[in-house]
Amino acid sequence: MRAGVDLGGTKIEVVVVGEDNQVAGQSRQATPTEGGPPAVVAAMAQGVKEAAAAAGIEPSELSGIGVGSPGEVSDGKVSHARNLPDWDDAFPLAMEVGEAVGAPVAVGNDVGVAVDAEAILGAGRDHHSFLGVWWGTGVGGAVVIEGKRWLGRGAAGEIGHTVIKLGGRRCECGRRGCLEAYAGRGSMERRARKKADKGDKTILFDLMKKHHHTRLTSGIWERALHKGDKVAEKIVDEAIEALGAGIASVVNLLDVEAVVIGGGLGTRFGQKGAERIEGEMGKHLFVPERPPVVRTAALGDLGGAIGASLLAPGREPVATP
Amino acid sequence: MRAGVDLGGTKIEVVVVGEDNQVAGQSRQATPTEGGPPAVVAAMAQGVKEAAAAAGIEPSELSGIGVGSPGEVSDGKVSHARNLPDWDDAFPLAMEVGEAVGAPVAVGNDVGVAVDAEAILGAGRDHHSFLGVWWGTGVGGAVVIEGKRWLGRGAAGEIGHTVIKLGGRRCECGRRGCLEAYAGRGSMERRARKKADKGDKTILFDLMKKHHHTRLTSGIWERALHKGDKVAEKIVDEAIEALGAGIASVVNLLDVEAVVIGGGLGTRFGQKGAERIEGEMGKHLFVPERPPVVRTAALGDLGGAIGASLLAPGREPVATP
Repeated sequence: MRAGVDLGGTKIEVVVVGEDNQVAGQSRQATPTEGGPPAVVAAMAQGVKEAAAAAGIEPSELSGIGVGSPGEVSDGKVSHARNLPDWDDAFPLAMEVGEAVGAPVAVGNDVGVAVDAEAILGAGRDHHSFLGVWWGTGVGGAVVIEGKRWLGRGAAGEIGHTVIKLGGRRCECGRRGCLEAYAGRGSMERRARKKADKGDKTILFDLMKKHHHTRLTSGIWERALHKGDKVAEKIVDEAIEALGAGIASVVNLLDVEAVVIGGGLGTRFGQKGAERIEGEMGKHLFVPERPPVVRTAALGDLGGAIGASLLAPGREPVATP
Repeated sequence: MRAGVDLGGTKIEVVVVGEDNQVAGQSRQATPTEGGPPAVVAAMAQGVKEAAAAAGIEPSELSGIGVGSPGEVSDGKVSHARNLPDWDDAFPLAMEVGEAVGAPVAVGNDVGVAVDAEAILGAGRDHHSFLGVWWGTGVGGAVVIEGKRWLGRGAAGEIGHTVIKLGGRRCECGRRGCLEAYAGRGSMERRARKKADKGDKTILFDLMKKHHHTRLTSGIWERALHKGDKVAEKIVDEAIEALGAGIASVVNLLDVEAVVIGGGLGTRFGQKGAERIEGEMGKHLFVPERPPVVRTAALGDLGGAIGASLLAPGREPVATP
């Protein structure tokens, strides 16, 4: 048995899986907002312990642990982990988790391992090539070619920084017109805040408080849409239009068989969201009569953790970081 | 010996090469503007005859002929050949040229074979992965991954239809905001015409008449820039800005090692043009500290014909179409 850990900005998902990749145990921890990397390591170790217990084993019996982490991953170290407080410098995550749990640890990029999981076990399984688009706080991605994630020189995947509007909206990355500036949940929240400050009526922030969140989560966006909130509708419309254009550009260049939509918002909006993205994409396809299949990530919320488990030492290696 | 034919909108370049891929003979014909595909076939046969004579052989002694053609290429047939008059329906180009010359013929996509030539013999030779951008009447492209052009489901390469400006300028393809609407020489000419009609001063069309052209060729654009024509400068600036954004988007997603700029305008503007594109690209790179190498196509004007020769039957097969 091995474990997979999906380290997110709000929660830490852990699965323990067998050789058949079936989930034998799982747990979820809140990501600590204080205490920096050491507190996160403690929460990860606790998560592994609980998931192992659910699978009926001791953590030290795990053959290995794979971790999907935000930020820059290199050689088991993680730096610039977005959405994780006080985590800019390189931190030896693999070593620290390994010592805390007593099993060998490998670390990969969070979106990368989730796309690997879809390629091997999920929505991409039957496709020779596909584009994975992870729509969440940011917009991450990966291109799978001949069944393998293409890594380039190690930094491939930044579909969120496709320029969809020259001279357009300012992105968190400092540049202008990036897809993420329109479709990233972080940018969408800033946009909503601006509109609310300007006096536009919206229930987004009331819902946020009511549900004891400090950010507009995917669930909040979904609830606001469900209640017909005009500000939410407009911002989500813009996000989907931007995603459609960015994805179509990749399809025009690479002619992949399929597009797999994952991530927090992608999973939350599900098939209906994927169909709306497909519609916007269709407007920009150069060969519109043969569009790629557009699917949602089949492994859902646990895909990141299952994908991370594929990295666990002791398994046949998959692409990393 | 084998022949390669680059079928362009204004000229037909033919080379005869040996096993070492060195050019042993060449010829250039004007592309017939009347008579449709049969007239084009006759001109191609004449070109092959002249190039073979220059190499000291008979056309029938050629082991095979490869053709790089615009339009949609499938199974030796070509349809919707842009810039070639009266050529919409599928025409059996391989068969007709084969009969006219007396040697077996294979046909591939013009940009595709030129990028193959750069991958195997030219600017991409030392790179594991690169993006080829063929900047001419349209903006074509190809991604080379692990030394091989990626074909997708057969229609890969349309970097010209990357959306760089949502809701932006109308493209010849009918959609809005495509890279080609800003950087394709066809769009650039329409833009210049509009500005001239509005009363903006430009020598572009005077130069065109003086040099007996019916279109603004790459040479005309270069001359106008050289003479400080403001309209030409503005349009070329916009084109380069658009190319930089479109290329950066691909680099952000695929993290390729290099970018190779070819095509009529790309070759004409040479290293200086490539450097300007590199500058614009740099503004949008997500990992700016490690940009890809930007190079011009090393095989220059003959690259298309040399690339076509790689397709010639009797040679080790390369990617096609």
